[in-house]
Amino acid sequence: MAARVQRMSRSMLKTLRDDPADAETLSHKLLVRAGYVRRTAAGIWTWLPLGKQVLENVTRVVREEMDAIGGQEVLLPALLPKEPYEVSGRYEEYGDLLFRLKDRKGGEYLLGPTHEEIFTQVVKDQCTSYKDLPVIIYQIQTKYRDEARPRSGILRGREFTMKDSYSFDVSDEALAESYALHRQAYQRIFERLGLDYRIVSAISGAMGGSASEEFLAPAAAGEDTYAQCPACGYAANTEAVSVAVQPRTAEGHPAVEVLDTPDTPTIETLAAHLDVPASATLKNLLVKVDGEITAVGVPGDREVDLGKLAEQLAPATVELVTADDFTGRPDLVRGYVGPQGGLAGKAFRYLADPRVAPGTAWVTGANQEGKHARNVVVGRDFEVDDYLDVVVVEPGDPCPRCGAGIELDRAIEIGHIFQLGRKYADAFELDVLGQDGKPVRVTMGSYGIGVSRAVAALAEQTADDQGLCWPREIAPADVHIVAAGKAAQTEAALEIAERLGEAGVRVLVDDRAGVSPGVKFTDAELIGVPTILVAGRGVKDGLVELKDRRTGAREDLPIADAVARLTPA
Amino acid sequence: MAARVQRMSRSMLKTLRDDPADAETLSHKLLVRAGYVRRTAAGIWTWLPLGKQVLENVTRVVREEMDAIGGQEVLLPALLPKEPYEVSGRYEEYGDLLFRLKDRKGGEYLLGPTHEEIFTQVVKDQCTSYKDLPVIIYQIQTKYRDEARPRSGILRGREFTMKDSYSFDVSDEALAESYALHRQAYQRIFERLGLDYRIVSAISGAMGGSASEEFLAPAAAGEDTYAQCPACGYAANTEAVSVAVQPRTAEGHPAVEVLDTPDTPTIETLAAHLDVPASATLKNLLVKVDGEITAVGVPGDREVDLGKLAEQLAPATVELVTADDFTGRPDLVRGYVGPQGGLAGKAFRYLADPRVAPGTAWVTGANQEGKHARNVVVGRDFEVDDYLDVVVVEPGDPCPRCGAGIELDRAIEIGHIFQLGRKYADAFELDVLGQDGKPVRVTMGSYGIGVSRAVAALAEQTADDQGLCWPREIAPADVHIVAAGKAAQTEAALEIAERLGEAGVRVLVDDRAGVSPGVKFTDAELIGVPTILVAGRGVKDGLVELKDRRTGAREDLPIADAVARLTPA
Repeated sequence: MAARVQRMSRSMLKTLRDDPADAETLSHKLLVRAGYVRRTAAGIWTWLPLGKQVLENVTRVVREEMDAIGGQEVLLPALLPKEPYEVSGRYEEYGDLLFRLKDRKGGEYLLGPTHEEIFTQVVKDQCTSYKDLPVIIYQIQTKYRDEARPRSGILRGREFTMKDSYSFDVSDEALAESYALHRQAYQRIFERLGLDYRIVSAISGAMGGSASEEFLAPAAAGEDTYAQCPACGYAANTEAVSVAVQPRTAEGHPAVEVLDTPDTPTIETLAAHLDVPASATLKNLLVKVDGEITAVGVPGDREVDLGKLAEQLAPATVELVTADDFTGRPDLVRGYVGPQGGLAGKAFRYLADPRVAPGTAWVTGANQEGKHARNVVVGRDFEVDDYLDVVVVEPGDPCPRCGAGIELDRAIEIGHIFQLGRKYADAFELDVLGQDGKPVRVTMGSYGIGVSRAVAALAEQTADDQGLCWPREIAPADVHIVAAGKAAQTEAALEIAERLGEAGVRVLVDDRAGVSPGVKFTDAELIGVPTILVAGRGVKDGLVELKDRRTGAREDLPIADAVARLTPA
Repeated sequence: MAARVQRMSRSMLKTLRDDPADAETLSHKLLVRAGYVRRTAAGIWTWLPLGKQVLENVTRVVREEMDAIGGQEVLLPALLPKEPYEVSGRYEEYGDLLFRLKDRKGGEYLLGPTHEEIFTQVVKDQCTSYKDLPVIIYQIQTKYRDEARPRSGILRGREFTMKDSYSFDVSDEALAESYALHRQAYQRIFERLGLDYRIVSAISGAMGGSASEEFLAPAAAGEDTYAQCPACGYAANTEAVSVAVQPRTAEGHPAVEVLDTPDTPTIETLAAHLDVPASATLKNLLVKVDGEITAVGVPGDREVDLGKLAEQLAPATVELVTADDFTGRPDLVRGYVGPQGGLAGKAFRYLADPRVAPGTAWVTGANQEGKHARNVVVGRDFEVDDYLDVVVVEPGDPCPRCGAGIELDRAIEIGHIFQLGRKYADAFELDVLGQDGKPVRVTMGSYGIGVSRAVAALAEQTADDQGLCWPREIAPADVHIVAAGKAAQTEAALEIAERLGEAGVRVLVDDRAGVSPGVKFTDAELIGVPTILVAGRGVKDGLVELKDRRTGAREDLPIADAVARLTPA
């Protein structure tokens, strides 16, 4: 048999009729049922023969396009010494996400979650002059992250395959070029993979919109939410969606009025009691920023995204307050805090959502037990120390570009490109000799593609009711030949397989004995090779059936014609 | 530029003039100096672009030949749960060699040193009937072993690339066939790689010589010693070299005679005192086997290999005796133990080297302080409870096959094939339904190739004084073009590179500006691409020089002829 022919009678392949009990997402269910992957431990997967082929096909596409932009492939270790990650500060920052271990001598190591530190060291060792740059180096390698809740099959594993690349340049302009090269390569990669994807800003406009973008594959199973504007086409990670502060005049508002509001512990009860919408109330969330009590004001109908808050205040640490923090603080009347301060004055910093704009008036705590205040006006009755975007974005929020209502969708993050700048070069003092003979600090970009995750994303986007349905370039075979059962049919199937295999066509041939045609057809749909060729009843008249897996279109035609149709020109 | 052309002016490549300080072996020195690998931590290496290409070339050869014997490629995780290794007992057995770690929830994991357990589980899950077998599955994957003294560069790393495959069969005969397939595949692989290798028995004849063989690459840097017989061609791991017990008649020996032997604490002093060769004395090593005192008798001129002893007595534990063990044992007169027993009788088990054959006479301890006995005859004065091969093999020892004197050589173990039998199938109760409808216990083979180690072995065997010297299939390029310096020469070099690249030839072109021709020539020799093309002074007359890296043969010829010569037909 030609090397490109896989006989199912000799393959380790067992399909399952039922979804695995723990599977929630489509790709998880189908990849397990069709025999592509098998769970070894939580978030740790074995790639079975069909799965390994799909993974390899994705890898090949990624490699070809990385090579095409001048990327040089290397292979770094996955087991890494702790020291470089201490230099960068990430040994601590990663927290529980990092797998840590010791060797027999007590030396401390980690399993690499991403390799900025080591790549920086490699370039510091290999490049000494501006003439040695630019450099783009990449690897396709196993990465480790100890996810709190590994789930969704290979979509969010603890061991996974990633392509990570890094660019090293002597100027911001050159970095922008390396970034643009990656952006183009990623577009070609995801197009070749047949993925539907969006490029979205990953950093809010304020920080420079082009410095970081994500490639998202829209899918119901996605763990990322992104915003897009149907009016102007703007698209961004929800964390990057920002609202501008639009000040209004503070004049014309009545004076502050303090109201008795018994039994109104929540925004809902308060709004109902006063018969105002929740959006008219001001919610003041108390947190400790680097240990200092800070209040964050947002409209009462909005939720604060604590992750976003922590990110915006980084590297400061953000903690929620506890009962103890109210002790000895007469300015903090629990449940009735207001930014305008009470009789005891106000001794906390006040941050607010841009919607709490100068000139807007609010119902908020009166800094007295059981009382709220109304007509509390920003700029008249209190000042906002800093504005920041920390509310959970909601559909209909204004598009930061055009102001129209945005829409929210779920997606899988399959790629990320990022102008890192000099963070790691500073940490490792990565300089090269410049054209003028003086040292130049190098600037870096970091670019990732989730290779194993792209397999899951493809499965999610292309599968249908019958099973997986791969694009040809990624499928484990070009043609799935079903021998319906009789000896003559199996013989014809194997002969066709051989002819196609010799012509360079990748063939999976179901020549299993003792398996009913019905089961074989179901398996063929489940496995998802793009073309199905049935060697059935027609074989005695020299006919086979060709079926397009995606459209379901069928056609009976002479064997020679079928072979010719499937053979590349 | 064609995809197959690498321009050194744009490559991350820095060669070193000096050997790295910590390098002892040739491959370590040269692979570092030529910019193929870089040390990240002890026994943990980064593969730089040239190294990654060589590693990839070796991988491709291994993959093609594994596919050719029907091997199905899979990819198992490197991060593995502890439980299956507890079932097999290897979690303990591996001792300090295993990297162990915990996840954020305290779950215990290890980094896979080899994957018998997980493959057994995969097959138990995927195969249920004799019809599903035979199966050969393999992976090319990163493995981890916490070596006590990682050294010799990539020759003995703690993170390394291995091809491991496993066969699953229903009968011993079928296992023998899977084993034979692997043996042939390995031969083809090592031949294609251009490695000089030997196939040696890894298990002594007594245990079935064909059940385990090693593929060794002779090299001075090798950490393995193997025996070969110049007379009959026999070759074996020294641990597998066994000596037959050749009984003689016990008659004709004088009676045992006890001699005063003051101040003879060692074999040397004893032999000198009595004026006999050390080989005429019998050394009795005391050990505890599962806690029981046992003596091991070997000729006085031979060393006992404690590792071999432990292996032969496994699973029993073997410990050396301590002073405490002599307390209350009048039969054990320290320094004067003899197997014939003394006045106090003899209460220990006696094992011996086959050279201590029935009928042979020895000088040995007389079981009295300061005394030895002579004419102590095996079978007349004492019995050997069991024979076993535990002495360190020496040059000139008899060949187990033909009796001629063997030779010893150093080598690098590059492959190992092993008929495991039912050890893991028993541990995991791996049965399939047999042809008669009854369960059959599966029998396994395990087969490994050190992929990264093969790169080092190739470097060791092929390098010369000038540097590395790769076989074409493994080299990072087919041709290394040196542009000697002038603009016209660089132009010609790039044009030739482009033409060759388009014709499918892999080219490394040294188009670096500001680097002297001398440095470029030295680098070309060091990097070791099989053909060097120099675009030098002759270019103005349309001539280039072709140099064979291995033979050093040079030839000037017209550019068109050089291109034609280097282009595959």
